Amino acid sequence: MAAAAATASRAWRLLRGSGAFHGRAAIQRLWDPPAQRRLFSNNKILVELDENTGVAVMKMKSPPVNSQTLEFLTEFSISLEKLENDRAYRGLILTSATPKIFSAGLDITEMCGKSEEHYAEFWRAVQEMWLKLYMSRLVTIAAINGSSPAGGCLMAVSCDYRIMAENPKYGIGLNETRLGIVAPFWFKDTMINTIGHRATEQALQMGLLYPAPQALSIGIVDQLVPEEKVQDVAAAAMTQWLAIPDHARLITKSAMRKPTVDRLLTHREADIQNFVSFISRDSIQKSLQVYLEMLKGKKG
Amino acid sequence: MAAAAATASRAWRLLRGSGAFHGRAAIQRLWDPPAQRRLFSNNKILVELDENTGVAVMKMKSPPVNSQTLEFLTEFSISLEKLENDRAYRGLILTSATPKIFSAGLDITEMCGKSEEHYAEFWRAVQEMWLKLYMSRLVTIAAINGSSPAGGCLMAVSCDYRIMAENPKYGIGLNETRLGIVAPFWFKDTMINTIGHRATEQALQMGLLYPAPQALSIGIVDQLVPEEKVQDVAAAAMTQWLAIPDHARLITKSAMRKPTVDRLLTHREADIQNFVSFISRDSIQKSLQVYLEMLKGKKG
Amino acid sequence: MAAAAATASRAWRLLRGSGAFHGRAAIQRLWDPPAQRRLFSNNKILVELDENTGVAVMKMKSPPVNSQTLEFLTEFSISLEKLENDRAYRGLILTSATPKIFSAGLDITEMCGKSEEHYAEFWRAVQEMWLKLYMSRLVTIAAINGSSPAGGCLMAVSCDYRIMAENPKYGIGLNETRLGIVAPFWFKDTMINTIGHRATEQALQMGLLYPAPQALSIGIVDQLVPEEKVQDVAAAAMTQWLAIPDHARLITKSAMRKPTVDRLLTHREADIQNFVSFISRDSIQKSLQVYLEMLKGKKG
Repeated sequence: MAAAAATASRAWRLLRGSGAFHGRAAIQRLWDPPAQRRLFSNNKILVELDENTGVAVMKMKSPPVNSQTLEFLTEFSISLEKLENDRAYRGLILTSATPKIFSAGLDITEMCGKSEEHYAEFWRAVQEMWLKLYMSRLVTIAAINGSSPAGGCLMAVSCDYRIMAENPKYGIGLNETRLGIVAPFWFKDTMINTIGHRATEQALQMGLLYPAPQALSIGIVDQLVPEEKVQDVAAAAMTQWLAIPDHARLITKSAMRKPTVDRLLTHREADIQNFVSFISRDSIQKSLQVYLEMLKGKKG
Repeated sequence: MAAAAATASRAWRLLRGSGAFHGRAAIQRLWDPPAQRRLFSNNKILVELDENTGVAVMKMKSPPVNSQTLEFLTEFSISLEKLENDRAYRGLILTSATPKIFSAGLDITEMCGKSEEHYAEFWRAVQEMWLKLYMSRLVTIAAINGSSPAGGCLMAVSCDYRIMAENPKYGIGLNETRLGIVAPFWFKDTMINTIGHRATEQALQMGLLYPAPQALSIGIVDQLVPEEKVQDVAAAAMTQWLAIPDHARLITKSAMRKPTVDRLLTHREADIQNFVSFISRDSIQKSLQVYLEMLKGKKG
Repeated sequence: MAAAAATASRAWRLLRGSGAFHGRAAIQRLWDPPAQRRLFSNNKILVELDENTGVAVMKMKSPPVNSQTLEFLTEFSISLEKLENDRAYRGLILTSATPKIFSAGLDITEMCGKSEEHYAEFWRAVQEMWLKLYMSRLVTIAAINGSSPAGGCLMAVSCDYRIMAENPKYGIGLNETRLGIVAPFWFKDTMINTIGHRATEQALQMGLLYPAPQALSIGIVDQLVPEEKVQDVAAAAMTQWLAIPDHARLITKSAMRKPTVDRLLTHREADIQNFVSFISRDSIQKSLQVYLEMLKGKKG
């Protein structure tokens, strides 16, 4: 493994030296600080790297609620892609740098009053985030240090393991129906893979947000720990996962998840069209507008 | 919603005025009492309507045990169809007007000593009941105020939510194998969707009837309450379900259940033929006869 | 039933009288002791027969750990086939005659330093064991009186019911990834059918061996009892299962399990090729060698 890591690291240096990543110069500067490669970042995502352990910590830092805008999702996918291609890294801890929130999910403003082209581009970015995360070659652990509704919940249940702060004020779930919208079939499938058919049926129909203790008992998360210990416990869990040879673990993960991913890959364009036509409906636009006004009212 | 309800209600009046339902005159009289539309009924099914809440309560009233005869099933499907088509109603509570029993399931006398044509007609009615109930656009809540074996259990697990009287003398389960018959694949699939593969495998092979407390722990029902509170708790749960916008809830429900329903729709005629040939076997007829004699002995 | 049993028993006598099983003479001698047919055996498998109850007890007796060698698997399948064809028997209790171990699973030496032909023959025997056991017409109860990793766990979860000694030193699970190998898709499918998708995902990726108490809570086994009572409780459970008419139980079992079995039957040769090419890799051979050396070191 050490040898492989060294090779991959050298490969990266060669690639960067060749200017192959010229177009991403801004990102590259942060990726490779002068003294030691320990951190890269862009506007919304901060990645801390530890070559000794092979573990990267990805921190969502888009205050106030880590909304998943098009920009956020694009940066997320680029950051993850980098880690996928860097054999120095075997594990990813996904967490939030924003207090009290893991991620509030898809940004409603991206779905409201925009063009069909924009909706399509946005939805493709949502798909991309899920496809990359759900099938990552890395061990992925969600360190859920705040609330995690809708798309935030999707991120969490797409990881291999979930540790949540035991604060009952933090909720997690696919609550789309509460806003009059619908979790797409691959959100649903990921949830079924996590908590089973019956619990998903009730959770998604009613748009339930489970407080941390209930989230544990229904199985959305695997473990609750005191808030200040979420990161340490995630690191400890990662050590256990990394004790397993990568190739065997990865074949197993792929066998478990590929059928679910293939359903989206087979219907990816139809899924985009479906989203665009649904979200473009007057009735849906109106109810999202009402919701946005309500959010602004709360803020103001 | 109010506007839609008014429109649907007007549509009904127009249809009835046009004589389109002439053939169901007896039902129509009860459907539309002179003073106020609050109730309809036929021989086996009583429906109480509340336009203010949009909730219908369907009470099975076929003593002594709400056996699902051909007549019972036909009336059930007609009553449900009416509610489906009446946009004034968004929710259905299914319960029993017969003490100590929810429904004893399919009536054995319909499967015993009759013609193949009769078996086929009966089985189609069983399918129809399930297809309508499992895919109802209404929120469906089972208020299980008594025992609910076999086809009674199927009705319950086809609803969106299940509240059962906490009386341990009441049992629920698909106990077909105890009588030497077999729950068809769509009973099995509905059960798998409710309690998972392993629990279904054991429950169906052994024909287990779960007393209320065990039914809760294995997940056949969602909630146990004192017997006298079943209806009130069902009404309260309905209020929570109706807080969700219908269109979003319904797309979600359909996404969860359609694959299961499609399996029957694809093989519906084969399933009927399969039932007819199985139930016509001498050995099966004999064991049902023995069972019927035993039931008569108990009664006598 | 009694009549059928007599007929089957006569059929066996006729077959044996005709010399049709000449090639298995050694086995036949033990199968049919002079005084009364009560026991048959071969090198690795001992079968105790009780015609009164219709229950056979199959004891794995291949010390020190009931490794599943090609010989072991062949004898297992032959013994099971015999019981399948003998209508005197309706139930099978699978247990170990070797202290502290149910079965250690597939024998690593069969996968190490052998020819591709050998790997293929071995893998076909593993498939055959599972196909026969998972779809057995008999009620199959695993009396798990010791540890049961990997292929031992597969045997257990392929039975209809599992009783385990409550000793927390005994572990059970599909721990293949720990050795750098991978549980094939039908191991995985059988596990999903037993404990669901999420628990399987974690269990198989991490190669978890669950101590008996955790195995119960996660659902790999159905019941824990004191070690000295495992056999008695298995016999009592068998009595309950045998109260169900065979034909109804068997149609139900087949409906539950056939889709899983069909996936292997459809891809059986590809699965063999897949195993052969995976296990022949230098890297896999090396890591198995290391593991074997470690085992020898422990022993020595």
